[in-house]
Amino acid sequence: MSDIKHKILALVKDDLEEIETALEENLNPYLDLVSKIAGHILFSGGKRLRPLLMVLSARICGYDGDYDKKFSTIFEYLHAATLLHDDLVDQATLRRGKPVAHSIWDNATTVLVGDFLLARALSIASETELPNVIRIVAEITENMSQGEIQQLMRKGSLDLTEKEYMEVIKRKTAVLFQGTCRVSALIAGAPKEKEVALSDYGFNLGIAFQMVDDLLDYTLDTGVLGKEVGADLKEGKLTLPVIYSLKAADAKDRAQMETIIKNRDFSVHVFKKLISLIKKCGGQKYTEKLAAEYVRNAKDALAVFNNSKTKDILLMIADYTLARNA
Amino acid sequence: MSDIKHKILALVKDDLEEIETALEENLNPYLDLVSKIAGHILFSGGKRLRPLLMVLSARICGYDGDYDKKFSTIFEYLHAATLLHDDLVDQATLRRGKPVAHSIWDNATTVLVGDFLLARALSIASETELPNVIRIVAEITENMSQGEIQQLMRKGSLDLTEKEYMEVIKRKTAVLFQGTCRVSALIAGAPKEKEVALSDYGFNLGIAFQMVDDLLDYTLDTGVLGKEVGADLKEGKLTLPVIYSLKAADAKDRAQMETIIKNRDFSVHVFKKLISLIKKCGGQKYTEKLAAEYVRNAKDALAVFNNSKTKDILLMIADYTLARNA
Repeated sequence: MSDIKHKILALVKDDLEEIETALEENLNPYLDLVSKIAGHILFSGGKRLRPLLMVLSARICGYDGDYDKKFSTIFEYLHAATLLHDDLVDQATLRRGKPVAHSIWDNATTVLVGDFLLARALSIASETELPNVIRIVAEITENMSQGEIQQLMRKGSLDLTEKEYMEVIKRKTAVLFQGTCRVSALIAGAPKEKEVALSDYGFNLGIAFQMVDDLLDYTLDTGVLGKEVGADLKEGKLTLPVIYSLKAADAKDRAQMETIIKNRDFSVHVFKKLISLIKKCGGQKYTEKLAAEYVRNAKDALAVFNNSKTKDILLMIADYTLARNA
Repeated sequence: MSDIKHKILALVKDDLEEIETALEENLNPYLDLVSKIAGHILFSGGKRLRPLLMVLSARICGYDGDYDKKFSTIFEYLHAATLLHDDLVDQATLRRGKPVAHSIWDNATTVLVGDFLLARALSIASETELPNVIRIVAEITENMSQGEIQQLMRKGSLDLTEKEYMEVIKRKTAVLFQGTCRVSALIAGAPKEKEVALSDYGFNLGIAFQMVDDLLDYTLDTGVLGKEVGADLKEGKLTLPVIYSLKAADAKDRAQMETIIKNRDFSVHVFKKLISLIKKCGGQKYTEKLAAEYVRNAKDALAVFNNSKTKDILLMIADYTLARNA
């Protein structure tokens, strides 16, 4: 585990424990099976990054109510719902090192449990009694489903542009991070300036997070990553490291890369060849550089807040986004 | 078409046209494909019963705002979302005489478009700025997903009880009708008494509607029904006509029915034999009688309202529930 992760975890230990309890207490299913399947995805070693961002964002706005942990579950339930549906859509096999839900139960039940989690998130959002909050949560869901559909539509397309890629990761990842942080400001009754600052922080963090996530698919082995290496590409999902490399490569390298990508059933050996081409063509460096820029923007957005322990943690989380290796 | 349907349609013609427009205007997708798939299920000759109930319920409470049609889309979008997911779950082939969405596009996109419609419904609900309304809409979704899961868990079980059946149809159908009518009262700012009355009306109507729906599976031919006859049973879904008949039958008839039900790949000829057994054992009569009781309860619930054209239509809709043949 990286140093920075250690440091953050030590600082938010109590928060994480309370978030864990809230996630168990607010699921509230009528059927045991729902609790089992939802639990499989919810309690499988997720980082709890989204609920943590909500709790810290509320705190930096001076929130001192009793409901930050409860409302933080909105964003983890939403996240879990989309993971259940996305794993199905992507026909994934592993998630966090465990078999995906639809391989243990079945597609049908997994779809419906995803729906339940989605509805739970919105039910809890309605308990804020803040129409703006509820609208944001519903809009996150609209965006996420459309981001996934857009990705699906362009599956296997070698001509996917960086612009399209950015549009997809904005919708499927960044709006959730953005909404999480923004909703906290609203719940805390913070002034507009702070709401905008946290919204910007979350958005930029989300973009960087997804870029690094996409990069990890080209750097780690299955054991550390908890899912198949090269999984994105095997699903026909082109991400920034590849998109950039294909554009920057000379004719020979591009032809080699295209051959590997088109034949999705590549061996580990061939995949390693692709990784070295991505390094050679600058796709890795470019993605790292861009992610670092977004992290810088995220950190800059927090300038409106006075220095505090909470601000330090939010800054550290931004840095961690780049340093993380799982 | 039955006389009563004719009569209702003449009375609500303008409302239905405005609902149709609202359904088109409020879908608001970012991607054309979403509009196409959502449109396939949304504009395929649905009865618009749910949005119509919302508009009429609001009117009987004296609502004179401009948003009844817009808010009525909440319930049709929600309904369409669950149809997309349920057809997938049930591996259905036909819906309203047309191939189901997941057979034209694919499972993955269909799941995601369902998510989008669900989110759209909640987004529009948030525009009411009434936390209670939003909570009810979210709870409807929680109930519907769990009702479907419960049905799925008990698929093929010959020992399904009437009590379990009632629990399933309550969750998967009646809470939506109930919520539709109740939300209207809230939007109209009606007194508690009227909110409760409309809630009761909707709940009882929903139960009756589903019972008749389940009965239609044993009476109509594919052309009229728009889906495969005997589809419920082929999916292993036992409904009230069968549940009652299995319980009421003598040993010989029960054995015959069980044989037919267990072999899901029955011919039309064998299915007709089952229908005659259901008639003989009283399953059809019993279901009709019970549905009629719920319709009576629905109509009784409206007693708190003065006589009006709108009340007449709501009473007619209750009667239509029993008379309908598709």
